[in-house]
Amino acid sequence: MTEQRLGILGGMGPQATQVFYQRILDMTDATRDQEHVPTLIWSDTQIPDRTAAILGGDAEGCYQRLLAGARLLERGGCTVLAIPCNTSHYFADRLQSELSTLRLVHMVRETASAMAQSGCRRVGVLATDGTVRTGVYQRECEALGLTCVPLPEAVQKLVMSIIYDEIKRGETGSREKFALIDRCLRRDLGCDGAILGCTELSVYRSYHGLPEYYLDAMDVLARGCIAACGYPLRLV
Amino acid sequence: MTEQRLGILGGMGPQATQVFYQRILDMTDATRDQEHVPTLIWSDTQIPDRTAAILGGDAEGCYQRLLAGARLLERGGCTVLAIPCNTSHYFADRLQSELSTLRLVHMVRETASAMAQSGCRRVGVLATDGTVRTGVYQRECEALGLTCVPLPEAVQKLVMSIIYDEIKRGETGSREKFALIDRCLRRDLGCDGAILGCTELSVYRSYHGLPEYYLDAMDVLARGCIAACGYPLRLV
Repeated sequence: MTEQRLGILGGMGPQATQVFYQRILDMTDATRDQEHVPTLIWSDTQIPDRTAAILGGDAEGCYQRLLAGARLLERGGCTVLAIPCNTSHYFADRLQSELSTLRLVHMVRETASAMAQSGCRRVGVLATDGTVRTGVYQRECEALGLTCVPLPEAVQKLVMSIIYDEIKRGETGSREKFALIDRCLRRDLGCDGAILGCTELSVYRSYHGLPEYYLDAMDVLARGCIAACGYPLRLV
Repeated sequence: MTEQRLGILGGMGPQATQVFYQRILDMTDATRDQEHVPTLIWSDTQIPDRTAAILGGDAEGCYQRLLAGARLLERGGCTVLAIPCNTSHYFADRLQSELSTLRLVHMVRETASAMAQSGCRRVGVLATDGTVRTGVYQRECEALGLTCVPLPEAVQKLVMSIIYDEIKRGETGSREKFALIDRCLRRDLGCDGAILGCTELSVYRSYHGLPEYYLDAMDVLARGCIAACGYPLRLV
């Protein structure tokens, strides 16, 4: 078998990339350096903001930068590709079609599938405006018979505020804001479960912890990548 | 000015690489993704153990793998190189001489220089057998008028045990072992300060914290890299 090599197309944001690599390490059953997955990480901090680009900015320029990054990883010998940024998955199928040997583990598709297997039927998706408005999760979830319940505008604003005003600025994120979101999901919308569909919210979870009600797309992606590279998972 | 791009040649071990990238993020004065240093990280987990290779193994094979990794980063557009592994710096000058556009921030040299500036004169170096026996730190420290005090063999064994039996296996490291090392440095050897000269010990510090008596080579390297890339340092 060819040596599998994981490529992480990151920098969206860089802190999320760092937390994602930590999860890869934590979830691999290894007792010495050489038992970990060889990994090339391109933390391209100069990629334009994805939500701004998709919703009325230079979406094509953003896509071309993502493609250039994926090709850099492909030239670097990577065989399995992870993009720890949910919003970017708007471009995922087009990106995959332009790569030759590099295989994308589709974060959104794998997460929708894990959610369907969990038995939840009515789910909330906590994500950026870009992810929400392009319907990235909605499409994948509905294909599997799940109902994605839209958040009220005021609650979506709280989600965006945690992502942009807090986590991306290097803060740990406000528990008070999250509590309001949680109450809305469970009480007002009656969701069985929710997806952490923005890697900045995965960073929030790494600081504060969250109950199993929340399925973290970053965890699903990490497990999928370790398995795709043929390395054993650490059972938690 | 050309866009500066940081290359991290890591995987020695992977957890140390992860912690090093966290320090780069923490020490950069940034409030959004785009204000962070673009960084390409090659976590080459298949590099042979450096101490084993240098002390009687295939040192040349180990060097060639490091060189191949550095060239991968150079081809990937990196301009500044960090190797968050003190032991590997045994090969640093030879490696630099074989690179064209990529400039190494020399972890050991920069740390010796920071130690000299701190006013300490009699220092202990906590490092692998490979780093200790090849005299990597000793040479750089003595060139600046510092005295490197050798550890008793039993204490060096405790250092190696924290590195290999604990941190590299995914554990957080034993405070009891470290307390014995600390007592030896301060009381038996009369050192003014000590260098954390192995990145697995930097990982230990990230879990437990350590007083200022310990100068962490990983911190010195992170600051040096951010400055070399022309990004502002966050004042702590």
